[in-house]
Amino acid sequence: MTVGCLGGGQLGRMLALAGAQLGQRFVFLDPGRGACAGQVGELVVGAYDGVDELSELSRRADVVTYEFESVPVSAARYLASRVPVYPPPRALEVAQDRLDEKRFFDALGVPTAAFRPASTRDELRDAARALGLPVVVKTRRFGYDGKGQAVCRTEADVEAAFDALGAAPLLVERLVPFDFEVSLLSVRSTKGEVRHYPLVRNRHAHGILQVSVPWRDAALQAEGEAHAARVLAELDYVGVLCVEFFVVGATLVANELAPRVHNSGHFTVEGAETSQFENHVRAVLGLPLGSTRVPRPTAMVNVVGGAPNTGALLALDGAHVHLYGKLGAAPGRKLGHVTVVAETDDARDRLVDAVLAHAPFVVRAD
Amino acid sequence: MTVGCLGGGQLGRMLALAGAQLGQRFVFLDPGRGACAGQVGELVVGAYDGVDELSELSRRADVVTYEFESVPVSAARYLASRVPVYPPPRALEVAQDRLDEKRFFDALGVPTAAFRPASTRDELRDAARALGLPVVVKTRRFGYDGKGQAVCRTEADVEAAFDALGAAPLLVERLVPFDFEVSLLSVRSTKGEVRHYPLVRNRHAHGILQVSVPWRDAALQAEGEAHAARVLAELDYVGVLCVEFFVVGATLVANELAPRVHNSGHFTVEGAETSQFENHVRAVLGLPLGSTRVPRPTAMVNVVGGAPNTGALLALDGAHVHLYGKLGAAPGRKLGHVTVVAETDDARDRLVDAVLAHAPFVVRAD
Repeated sequence: MTVGCLGGGQLGRMLALAGAQLGQRFVFLDPGRGACAGQVGELVVGAYDGVDELSELSRRADVVTYEFESVPVSAARYLASRVPVYPPPRALEVAQDRLDEKRFFDALGVPTAAFRPASTRDELRDAARALGLPVVVKTRRFGYDGKGQAVCRTEADVEAAFDALGAAPLLVERLVPFDFEVSLLSVRSTKGEVRHYPLVRNRHAHGILQVSVPWRDAALQAEGEAHAARVLAELDYVGVLCVEFFVVGATLVANELAPRVHNSGHFTVEGAETSQFENHVRAVLGLPLGSTRVPRPTAMVNVVGGAPNTGALLALDGAHVHLYGKLGAAPGRKLGHVTVVAETDDARDRLVDAVLAHAPFVVRAD
Repeated sequence: MTVGCLGGGQLGRMLALAGAQLGQRFVFLDPGRGACAGQVGELVVGAYDGVDELSELSRRADVVTYEFESVPVSAARYLASRVPVYPPPRALEVAQDRLDEKRFFDALGVPTAAFRPASTRDELRDAARALGLPVVVKTRRFGYDGKGQAVCRTEADVEAAFDALGAAPLLVERLVPFDFEVSLLSVRSTKGEVRHYPLVRNRHAHGILQVSVPWRDAALQAEGEAHAARVLAELDYVGVLCVEFFVVGATLVANELAPRVHNSGHFTVEGAETSQFENHVRAVLGLPLGSTRVPRPTAMVNVVGGAPNTGALLALDGAHVHLYGKLGAAPGRKLGHVTVVAETDDARDRLVDAVLAHAPFVVRAD
C-alpha cells in the first residue's frame, strides 16, 4: 500500500520509517523542495491547496494522512472525496480553532479552563472581567509552540494583549494554576480498536517541548483515557491522537488536542513495545494495533536550534539518537531528539542529564 | 553524510532505515529498477561493474559499503581509489573464494574442517580419499543458501558431485559432525572500536535460514569472540562481520564469513540495544559504536517465498513484523522476517511457534 501524507517534516519522516518496516510506501506533499521526509519517501512539491498536487496525491495514495494540524481543512475534504483520509477532516477542523476545541471538550464533559471568545477590545475586557484575572489570551487560529498567546495578570496586560493579538479573533481562558503538563497519546484503528500509551509529563522551555517522561499515576491514567475515549468516539477518529492536559491536584484539565503523532510521543520508538508511528500506520491501514506497553524507564530530550554533539550522545549507553536530516539550524527549529532507556528511574534521570549536556536547545529570544 | 551502497536489497533497505534515524542519506547501486532499497533512498540503476555507475556512486557518496558479498572485487577496488570503502575490499576477496577463506582461517589459527582444493575428477577423488568420507564438495565461488554444494557419503556420490559441480574449481571439506550452527555478529569501527553480539543459533531448512535464537554459552562466546577478533584485526576490518561456526561438542569450528550485515543478525533491531544496521552505519562513519546487549529473550523467523498473514502476525503481542516491500513472491525469496521479544525463554519459544504458523517458508524443491 502507499500512504499519502500532507506535510513532509520530521513527523512524516518518522511515519515513513515505521511504515517502510511494514513494507508500506509513502508519498508526501510539501511546499518545500528540501522537506526532510523526501529523503525516505517520494515527495510532491507543491501547495497544500493546489488542486493539481492534491489530485496527484490522491491518485498515488491508497490512504491519506497528515503530519501537522495547519493543513487546510478544505484540502483534507477534497482528498476525502477521492480516497480515505485519516484522521477525519472534522478532527482537523476542531483542532484548528481553539474556541471550537474548547466547546468540543465542553460538550463531551471533558473539563477545560473556563473560557470566552472575544473579537473586540470591549469583548476582551468583558471576558477578562467575567473570568477573573489572571487570564490567557490566545488567537483562535494558527497558534503553536506558545506563539499567539499572552498571559494577562493586570488590566494593562489585557490592553497590551489586544494590541499584540487583537487583529484576529481571540479566545480568553482563565489561567489554570496547574502543577505540571502531561499528554496522552491514544490510537484508534479503522476497525475501532483503541489503545492508549502511558501519560507522559512534558517540560517546556519558551513554549517548546524540551523533555518528556512517562508519568505513572493509575488514577490520572484512567481519567485521561476516559476523556480521550470520548474524543475518539465522537470524531469516529482513526490514527494517533494527542490530548494535552494540565494536572491540577488530583485531576486533569484538557488544554488542547493534536490530531496526529506528537513530539511528546517520540519516546515510544525505543521506549514502548510499538511506536506511535507504527501504530498510526497500522491504524490508518486497518491493521491490528500493537502493544503500547512501556517496559522500562524511558524519556525523550529534544534537540532544538543547533547541531548536537552526536559523537558524545552516541557514546552514552542507553541513548538513541534521532536526527531529522534537516539542512540548516535556526533558533527554535527541531533538528532531532534523543530517547533514553534505562533499568531504573534514577539511571534514566542521570541519562537525561547527560543527554542535556550535549543536546542544544536554542530558541528565539521573545 | 551520504552512504553509498552496492546492492539495493533488503539489507541495504534496513541499513538505510537505520541510517535515516541518524540523519544520514543513502544512495544505492543495483541492476534492478525495482530494488526494494530504492523505496527509502536514492537508486542508481546499473551494473556493478559499470564505470559510469561506479563513478556516479563515488561522486555522490562520502563513504561506500555493500550489502552482499558477490560484488565484483574490482568494483570495490575502483571505488576505494576514490572514496573510503568499508568493509575493505580484501574482506570481499577472502569471502568470495571458499578456498581462500579456509586458508585465511587456517593462517589465523581459527579451526576449520580439514579441506583440499580440487579442479579435476582425479583431484576430487584423491581429496575425498585423503580426507575420508563423508565429505562436502563445494564450488569455490558463488555459493549461497546451500547452493553449489553436495554432501558425499559414498564414492558414487563423489562421482555425481563432480558431474554436477566440476565445471568450476572445487573445495572439498571433511564433513563436520556438528551439533548445531551458530553465528557471531561483530562490528569494528574506523576508530578500531570493537563490539560483539551474543552468539545466535541458526536453524536452516533446505539451506535457507528459517529461525535464529541467541545462544548463551559463556565459553563458546569467548571462543567465538577471540576468533572474530583475529579476523577483524587481520583485515583491518570496518563494519559488521558475520562468522558462521559449527558447534562440535564444547568447541567452535569456523564455516564461513560474510563481510556484511547478516540475516542471522536481524533479531538485533528490536532484540538488542543497538541493531546490527545502526552499528554498521556508525562503524563506517567513525561514530562510537552502540551497546550490543540483548536485554530480553528474543528470536527471529524468516518469511520466505510467500506472503505472510500480516494481520495475524501483528496481532501477536511481542512480534515485530518486517516486510521488505518486494513486488513478487517466488520460492526461496526472502520477503520479510518477524522478530519476537518476550519476558521469558518459554514465552519466546511459544511466540516463535505462533509466528511460524503464519510465516510462509516456501523454497524451491531441489
